[in-house]
Amino acid sequence: MTKVKEIGEQGLLERLQRFCPSDVIGDDAAVLVTEAGQSLVVTTDMLVDGVHFSDATTSPEDAGWRAAAANLSDLAAMGATPLGITVALGLPGDLSVSWVESLYQGMTQCLQQYHTPIVGGDVVRSPITSLSITAFGQVHPNRIIRRSAAQVGDAIVVTGVHGASHAGLKLLLDPQIGKDLSTAQKTALIKAHQRPQPRLDVLSHLPLIPIAGMDSSDGLADAVLQICRASGVGAVIRSSQIPLPTAFDHWLTPEQALNYALYGGEDFELVLCLSPDAATTLVKQLGQGATIIGTITSDTRVLLHHQNTKIPDQVLSLSQGFQHFSQ
Amino acid sequence: MTKVKEIGEQGLLERLQRFCPSDVIGDDAAVLVTEAGQSLVVTTDMLVDGVHFSDATTSPEDAGWRAAAANLSDLAAMGATPLGITVALGLPGDLSVSWVESLYQGMTQCLQQYHTPIVGGDVVRSPITSLSITAFGQVHPNRIIRRSAAQVGDAIVVTGVHGASHAGLKLLLDPQIGKDLSTAQKTALIKAHQRPQPRLDVLSHLPLIPIAGMDSSDGLADAVLQICRASGVGAVIRSSQIPLPTAFDHWLTPEQALNYALYGGEDFELVLCLSPDAATTLVKQLGQGATIIGTITSDTRVLLHHQNTKIPDQVLSLSQGFQHFSQ
Repeated sequence: MTKVKEIGEQGLLERLQRFCPSDVIGDDAAVLVTEAGQSLVVTTDMLVDGVHFSDATTSPEDAGWRAAAANLSDLAAMGATPLGITVALGLPGDLSVSWVESLYQGMTQCLQQYHTPIVGGDVVRSPITSLSITAFGQVHPNRIIRRSAAQVGDAIVVTGVHGASHAGLKLLLDPQIGKDLSTAQKTALIKAHQRPQPRLDVLSHLPLIPIAGMDSSDGLADAVLQICRASGVGAVIRSSQIPLPTAFDHWLTPEQALNYALYGGEDFELVLCLSPDAATTLVKQLGQGATIIGTITSDTRVLLHHQNTKIPDQVLSLSQGFQHFSQ
Repeated sequence: MTKVKEIGEQGLLERLQRFCPSDVIGDDAAVLVTEAGQSLVVTTDMLVDGVHFSDATTSPEDAGWRAAAANLSDLAAMGATPLGITVALGLPGDLSVSWVESLYQGMTQCLQQYHTPIVGGDVVRSPITSLSITAFGQVHPNRIIRRSAAQVGDAIVVTGVHGASHAGLKLLLDPQIGKDLSTAQKTALIKAHQRPQPRLDVLSHLPLIPIAGMDSSDGLADAVLQICRASGVGAVIRSSQIPLPTAFDHWLTPEQALNYALYGGEDFELVLCLSPDAATTLVKQLGQGATIIGTITSDTRVLLHHQNTKIPDQVLSLSQGFQHFSQ
């Protein structure tokens, strides 16, 4: 198997250029055309081997898909449609060229769904494989989705089920669990983890009113908490309304299912706050798990309310999330 | 000294946010406004500890400055004025917070000269310190500088002296050399290496005619060769015309000096091809080492011509440059 060091930086760049449109190659930087009157939206992510992906659970194709999806999801979370991405790679010389090509294959498979080109990048030597993606999109200034725009009385919409990605990861890490699940159910959960879909499709359904929101990449609880903190408001989330994969019904306890949904992360759905009428219309249009899960309140707390039970309301807090460095 | 793992990802991001304008913080992505009719220019770089910088020769401030300067230089090489940069950091938990803050200090010192904000980023755990910068700029479509636009008969202009950065690195690596240099000369050469200046100042002097070019970050020889390859032309470079630091005169042999200038790299000057009349005017306006060093020819070779000597013309080739992976 050909190694990166055998073909060198220039040789590798030439192989990777077939994943890029020909008109962006060969200059110090790429040139993109934005539409008049649109704002530019920019987001960046770094992924490190052994921290964010690993050959043990993730093929290079899936690592590429997930990296692209995470960045497109950040654009969707701002209301922006993608223009392109750049990819910077740090690679050990002993890595196989086919691994790198598979990574690019996965990225472009995800990007092609949204007609998004890889417009540039960098390839450098590094003792550890790492990947930094920067994505650019555009949005009309009136249609920017911000975390800080939630209003008291807004309905909180999630665009789909939560917990599936985390369940898929669990199944990959321990194939012994989930024996009660059908093969189709397992496959669907694993796919939710390996091939998450950024919800760019949601944007065309959004009404022309101010909308607050973000994506649920760090978990549903984190998204609601971040929006409330940025907007200076609180929320009540009705636990029974949180949409879950049907596969959870006979597999997980209600507590486990709720934990997966609230804290699992990487579902890459959107969490949106808008007027109740507009939210009802949006949920109907989206279908497929889109649900109103709660309401923005003037409280500063985020309460998880368990209907029809004696369990008292829980106060959610950011500290229940994890701190990546201290793990 | 506080370590990164002690304050966590969120704590570190909060400390770094003081280097960013307040209006870009707290969403999934940053929003930038581009001027109507301008094209967007995007470039990305990854830098890895031990490969591209090292505490042995580079303070974190200088590493930050150099990283920012390299990306701004890529924008200048496209004719674009900067709008902002994003910064993705991979950090070991044991790294000190002050190291990271110093890195940001150096970056912002360079960026502030050009009113360029850090508009976003990512901080992740990694076994090795690495840094990925993506820079965005804008340029009127008629003023884009491309490598592929060189015309036979164009004069080749360099915007300043070459070889200084490499000489500065040599002096840092071995303080015993350069004994014939004055302290001021040494300081100037070392500064050329530690604090290179992207030549964004050149853009306002460029005439409104098609200009080919790139920056000389990978060496002057590489720049001329890349332009010629992209444009399908050749060049004659007159070795005696290549502007060198005056400190080289009594320190290096003519061969050493020429090698530093052609292959040293990281001078971050611009190499521009334009009509001889316009080139003469530009060189006068720029002053400070700006020189016409040669001519674009219909040959496909790049020849180094040594005037007033018996040394035959040399043919320059890309293979004389280095391949980063095979080192």
